[in-house]
Amino acid sequence: MAEMLNVVPPQEALQRLHQHLSPLARREEVDVAEALDRVVARELAAPSDLPSFPRSTMDGYAVRASDTYGASEGVPAYLEVVGEVVMGGPAGIAVHAGRAAKVHTGGMLPEGSDAVVMVENTQQVDERTIEVVRPVAPGENVLRVGDDVRKGSLLLRAGHRLRPQDIGGLMGMGITRVVVYPRPRLAILSTGDEVVPPQQEPAPGQVRDINSYSLAAMARRAGAVPAAFGISSDDYEELRGRAGQALADSDILVISAGSSVSTRDATARVISSLGEPGVLVHGVSMRPGKPTVLAVAGGKPVFGLPGNPVSSLVTFELFVVPTIHLLGGYGTPPVRESVEARLARNVASTAGREDYVAVRLERRGGERWAVPIFGESNLITVLMRADGMALIPLNVHGVSEGETVRVFLF
Amino acid sequence: MAEMLNVVPPQEALQRLHQHLSPLARREEVDVAEALDRVVARELAAPSDLPSFPRSTMDGYAVRASDTYGASEGVPAYLEVVGEVVMGGPAGIAVHAGRAAKVHTGGMLPEGSDAVVMVENTQQVDERTIEVVRPVAPGENVLRVGDDVRKGSLLLRAGHRLRPQDIGGLMGMGITRVVVYPRPRLAILSTGDEVVPPQQEPAPGQVRDINSYSLAAMARRAGAVPAAFGISSDDYEELRGRAGQALADSDILVISAGSSVSTRDATARVISSLGEPGVLVHGVSMRPGKPTVLAVAGGKPVFGLPGNPVSSLVTFELFVVPTIHLLGGYGTPPVRESVEARLARNVASTAGREDYVAVRLERRGGERWAVPIFGESNLITVLMRADGMALIPLNVHGVSEGETVRVFLF
Repeated sequence: MAEMLNVVPPQEALQRLHQHLSPLARREEVDVAEALDRVVARELAAPSDLPSFPRSTMDGYAVRASDTYGASEGVPAYLEVVGEVVMGGPAGIAVHAGRAAKVHTGGMLPEGSDAVVMVENTQQVDERTIEVVRPVAPGENVLRVGDDVRKGSLLLRAGHRLRPQDIGGLMGMGITRVVVYPRPRLAILSTGDEVVPPQQEPAPGQVRDINSYSLAAMARRAGAVPAAFGISSDDYEELRGRAGQALADSDILVISAGSSVSTRDATARVISSLGEPGVLVHGVSMRPGKPTVLAVAGGKPVFGLPGNPVSSLVTFELFVVPTIHLLGGYGTPPVRESVEARLARNVASTAGREDYVAVRLERRGGERWAVPIFGESNLITVLMRADGMALIPLNVHGVSEGETVRVFLF
Repeated sequence: MAEMLNVVPPQEALQRLHQHLSPLARREEVDVAEALDRVVARELAAPSDLPSFPRSTMDGYAVRASDTYGASEGVPAYLEVVGEVVMGGPAGIAVHAGRAAKVHTGGMLPEGSDAVVMVENTQQVDERTIEVVRPVAPGENVLRVGDDVRKGSLLLRAGHRLRPQDIGGLMGMGITRVVVYPRPRLAILSTGDEVVPPQQEPAPGQVRDINSYSLAAMARRAGAVPAAFGISSDDYEELRGRAGQALADSDILVISAGSSVSTRDATARVISSLGEPGVLVHGVSMRPGKPTVLAVAGGKPVFGLPGNPVSSLVTFELFVVPTIHLLGGYGTPPVRESVEARLARNVASTAGREDYVAVRLERRGGERWAVPIFGESNLITVLMRADGMALIPLNVHGVSEGETVRVFLF
């Protein structure tokens, strides 16, 4: 396995991978009340008209509109009040010519009435009589049957991600269960002879596992169900056995590769062995993240991410998160949250390479500045102190102090 | 209870409420691996140096830097290779003058060495000898003990919300449990004689509950633990009993009030009766959302939100979400996600009132436009078809077609 003979730009790398993938085929049915952020797998139509009865949108009096024509402060219309509509029941009253019924917002319109006069436009004359001082048109202050939703009309398209209002709206129409795309199951396998679980006190030469946990959190945030498959040694057979098992149990496999070249090569060889078409991209023109491997084995995406904690997070965000969205059936690609800021010092780069620089965001005189964080780029603490990563685009040689950059919030 | 004698602007309303509140006093200890988005309650310091041993940051050879001074392509330094550092173990080799040891990225520096020559800057001469063609300085390509984190140094401040990198970083330091603020428990009580559970077929005059579900989803998204306390009739005694119980069991009480004036007044009276100081704001200069009640009873925030589904979501976002964040111990207030867009048609407003208009976002010729959605403003389907709410600020009379507005994504 030759190391990175053909380094490709990040967007092209992602396209090469995604042309082999499609949304997961299986479906789940879940309670709508628990379905926040789930993605609808079949379009949903309204099972009935909403509202199912004519409702008042105001506190006032249900009337025949024609009884109010020409009414004014000077020449009010006098109407006899025949009762009050009880909330939550049938109106139970009929409004004939010259009559009115008291009605509350949301109450059912009585038979015979076709409009509601706002209480502000009436005067109580005596116990049974009101003056109406302004005319209403038929349908005024009234929600007719089906005004909100017509039976059979499209409510939500397939691929729609459920928001709070969608959940309320579906429940309001009596739709309490919904068929959704499954959350992709994402296996994380860490490699490295030097890596030990965090619960263990590292001996000299050993370090605790970071990436299994940071990547699982990223996966969860992106809508996947992460599962940690432990730490493998760099031994080819062990890694291959564990990777094959993890892939069989999951929709996506992420291997957080060791950091040395030989270990990364072993990871790439293992990935090649998992199935066709195998490795599609080995090496991406970005920093950090150059030694990223993108592959497909048996229809499933497999990622070999660089082992250092910062590289693994950046490449996960760039390649794995959009893949989670693709498999999870999202209709539109996710938009990473980002802000613009002025760069607080010169940052060098190389044309033909995307650079991501950890920055802290600061307000200075009403402006937002991105202050690059000093220190070795592969330290986890750099990202802990950072608010985001500033992008130095593919085709620039660097960005000067004071120029505007886009900062992706991490 | 007089209805809305003193309508106040939204920001002032929130301030009046928040001056009575402070973060919840109780604490929880949770697994770091499960603590994504939880808020750290006590500052965290590094329990040990990281790395705990000197590590190579490159694949190459560990050397004494002084042995390479003056080395060049023309006059290389010749060094004897005395072995290879095994990953994950102590180096187990000593590098004396004139010697070198093969080392991988992340490997431990052998005793006696103080720098690493990248493999690219060496040539293998024979099995035991390399040429070094470039000098290195002491410490070059080496991470010294504590270079990432010094023992005792501040890792995270209290009030910090845990991100994926924080979770990885803490695990990497062996911190597997963390003390966090509790998620506020938020009780939702719906009222209205006409409201029935979604599972039930509504009789004439009845409607299904929407707000219990949309607000619970909003609460969950904001970091609270919602609990539905069912649907109360508009009867004062019943509502008071249920509200008192819900408040006793929770940190925040949200009453989704009925939509008629009389029902809203009953809700305000119930809220007044729950404890001191009682109702702080009754009426906010915004649309939708004017009849909002903000109160504090026995140190806990109580909200009476308008019953219509759109008003309840907008006021929840504006008043309840920041209150969840306050009680949940967030160090900085949340920033609602928003975008700028050009308004696709004139929208009238009234100076002295904040208006929120449901809009769909569209791309037209490379620009983002906000298209107001027609229809009665209190319909849930309007929000289902919307991408967000455009803000018409407090002190303008309206916004003309083509002008830029801020759209809060819902």
